[in-house]
Amino acid sequence: MEADNSLQSILYKRGSLQLLDQRKLPLESIYLEIRDATDGWSAIRDMVVRGAPAIAIAAALSLAVEVFNLEAFNGTTDDAALFLNKKLEYLVSSRPTAVNLSDAATKLKEVISMAATAASEARSIFQAYIEAAEIMLKDDVGSNKAIGSHGVSFLHHQLKNSKKLSILTHCNTGSLATAGYGTALGVIRAIHSEGLLERAYCTETRPFNQGSRLTAFELVHDNIPATLIADSAAAALMKDGRVDAVIVGADRVAANGDTANKIGTYSLSLCAMNHHIPFYVAAPLTSIDLSLYSGKEIVIEERSPKELTHSRGGLGEQVAASGISVWNPAFDVTPANLISGIITEKGVVTKVSSDAFDIKDFIEKAAK
Amino acid sequence: MEADNSLQSILYKRGSLQLLDQRKLPLESIYLEIRDATDGWSAIRDMVVRGAPAIAIAAALSLAVEVFNLEAFNGTTDDAALFLNKKLEYLVSSRPTAVNLSDAATKLKEVISMAATAASEARSIFQAYIEAAEIMLKDDVGSNKAIGSHGVSFLHHQLKNSKKLSILTHCNTGSLATAGYGTALGVIRAIHSEGLLERAYCTETRPFNQGSRLTAFELVHDNIPATLIADSAAAALMKDGRVDAVIVGADRVAANGDTANKIGTYSLSLCAMNHHIPFYVAAPLTSIDLSLYSGKEIVIEERSPKELTHSRGGLGEQVAASGISVWNPAFDVTPANLISGIITEKGVVTKVSSDAFDIKDFIEKAAK
Repeated sequence: MEADNSLQSILYKRGSLQLLDQRKLPLESIYLEIRDATDGWSAIRDMVVRGAPAIAIAAALSLAVEVFNLEAFNGTTDDAALFLNKKLEYLVSSRPTAVNLSDAATKLKEVISMAATAASEARSIFQAYIEAAEIMLKDDVGSNKAIGSHGVSFLHHQLKNSKKLSILTHCNTGSLATAGYGTALGVIRAIHSEGLLERAYCTETRPFNQGSRLTAFELVHDNIPATLIADSAAAALMKDGRVDAVIVGADRVAANGDTANKIGTYSLSLCAMNHHIPFYVAAPLTSIDLSLYSGKEIVIEERSPKELTHSRGGLGEQVAASGISVWNPAFDVTPANLISGIITEKGVVTKVSSDAFDIKDFIEKAAK
Repeated sequence: MEADNSLQSILYKRGSLQLLDQRKLPLESIYLEIRDATDGWSAIRDMVVRGAPAIAIAAALSLAVEVFNLEAFNGTTDDAALFLNKKLEYLVSSRPTAVNLSDAATKLKEVISMAATAASEARSIFQAYIEAAEIMLKDDVGSNKAIGSHGVSFLHHQLKNSKKLSILTHCNTGSLATAGYGTALGVIRAIHSEGLLERAYCTETRPFNQGSRLTAFELVHDNIPATLIADSAAAALMKDGRVDAVIVGADRVAANGDTANKIGTYSLSLCAMNHHIPFYVAAPLTSIDLSLYSGKEIVIEERSPKELTHSRGGLGEQVAASGISVWNPAFDVTPANLISGIITEKGVVTKVSSDAFDIKDFIEKAAK
């Protein structure tokens, strides 16, 4: 495998963490030094870093850096465990609704608790914590690379033809949303690195422009041939025969395969189906919520009208007429029957019937 | 019929013309005084007025105002005809690719030519010109109101149910794009004035935001219950059961009913079909081009990448990553099989088979 030159949004070495300031993108690439949990908390709250996996790992690593650089810690192992747990709770408060962040904190607390039972000095607890946070970083990148690798071999097998593939994606699912490499964008990176990519198409992704601001930035950074389109132009692009497959990420996948993802995903899946273009979801198994029977159980968050009425996702000047009502759902649900496959780090989940996946069964078999 | 309180973008009385400055919308409503063809030329070239029917009529009226207010004209009838013809050619040069504008100039030249044959003094030629320009204004508004009226009775008949209707539209097809009232938005106005409208939904209409800037402005102005959505949210809105019909305008309709309209229209038609929601085109017969057998013959204009990479339709700050390629088609083609009916000023054209209209036959019968 060739060296990974893909964009790095989290630069970490033991004792040092830098985060690419996503608020400045795409106009400036500035890395901010994160010295401790306080810096990490601010970076997350102020949207320096975004994307569910990325914020969980940035939070974990900010505390790892802090404890690695502690000059002295006068306390018992219990004091050290308490110190870490309190800092983790504080970090979770930066984005209280982010499930990945609180899940990560829960896992790290378990590590701390186990270390506290076994260790005889505070330093060992810190060491155990640092190693666990570093494994999270490595695992997320590793899992994304596995998604990419499974994606490219599956697509190559499914879409057997001599020509290279053009892939349409939506929103940002790349290095800027994860610990690195990305999910759907990771598959595109893998297709490109195998020499099989004709062109990536990324949608603008209204109203917050994650596509034009972030995905386009990653594609240009990695020298991947890429074209930006308006969300509403996707159907015309498909009709022109310029899309071989659509690959999107997922915020949450229900047990039957129904997938909640950025608003506009459902529209793309309908357009793909009507043009007989395969439509794939790329997501780690952690995005699959087996407690949800179907997408009907997923509650859709509605966001501020300002994202539509003002430029720059609500921060800029007024664009729309004063007094207009707005409906601004953050996500929509793509039903399983419109999804051709779910690309995970353990392989590609395919359908058991025309309209459903059995993801539980897939996970059980993958665990064996 | 109740008084028409719909937004007026062209304020005309004999000898006086004011145009609503659409560049300032939706933040300011400023009418500019247009005194002569030179003012008219600048207003069209500088996008004070836009929309194919609107610019043709604004041009014609600017010259009508000029000749009405001429203090003296020392010349023969031939001199008067030459004066008007030259001014018309000059006006056409403001937007050379606008077909409605050159069509209007051709028709007005015929009026001038006929008047020159019959009249004995220059004043009579001017009078004939003024009357012809005024008829154009009246006819366009009249034709739009007829579209609205046919639309409301047809929809009322088709969508028989006790509840009011929610209509989704795209782009701007209202008073700001026509001489007044509008085509697709005219139908929504008519449904509202009959007390049959639950809610109008307008798309943002990327990348130039005609929906959020102009349609939303008209809907708020006319106190029509209305909600703005991102283009990509339309499918989710339909899935929620909140859309009873989609009504859009047309840039050009081919003889078989294939319709070129603002980019995103095709995507809406696919989404509507998949949700069993009727999809209507509202357009005057002048938008129908019987010389085109099908939509395949319609050439799609591509517009500047800046509309996507920069805010405010390319005039504002940079939003997208530097160096990204862009595909920015102005229009797409919706095939006839996805269109439930074409609402014209002569009635609603319905299908002769599952995938085609016979518009020529409809026009011939309507002319009888």
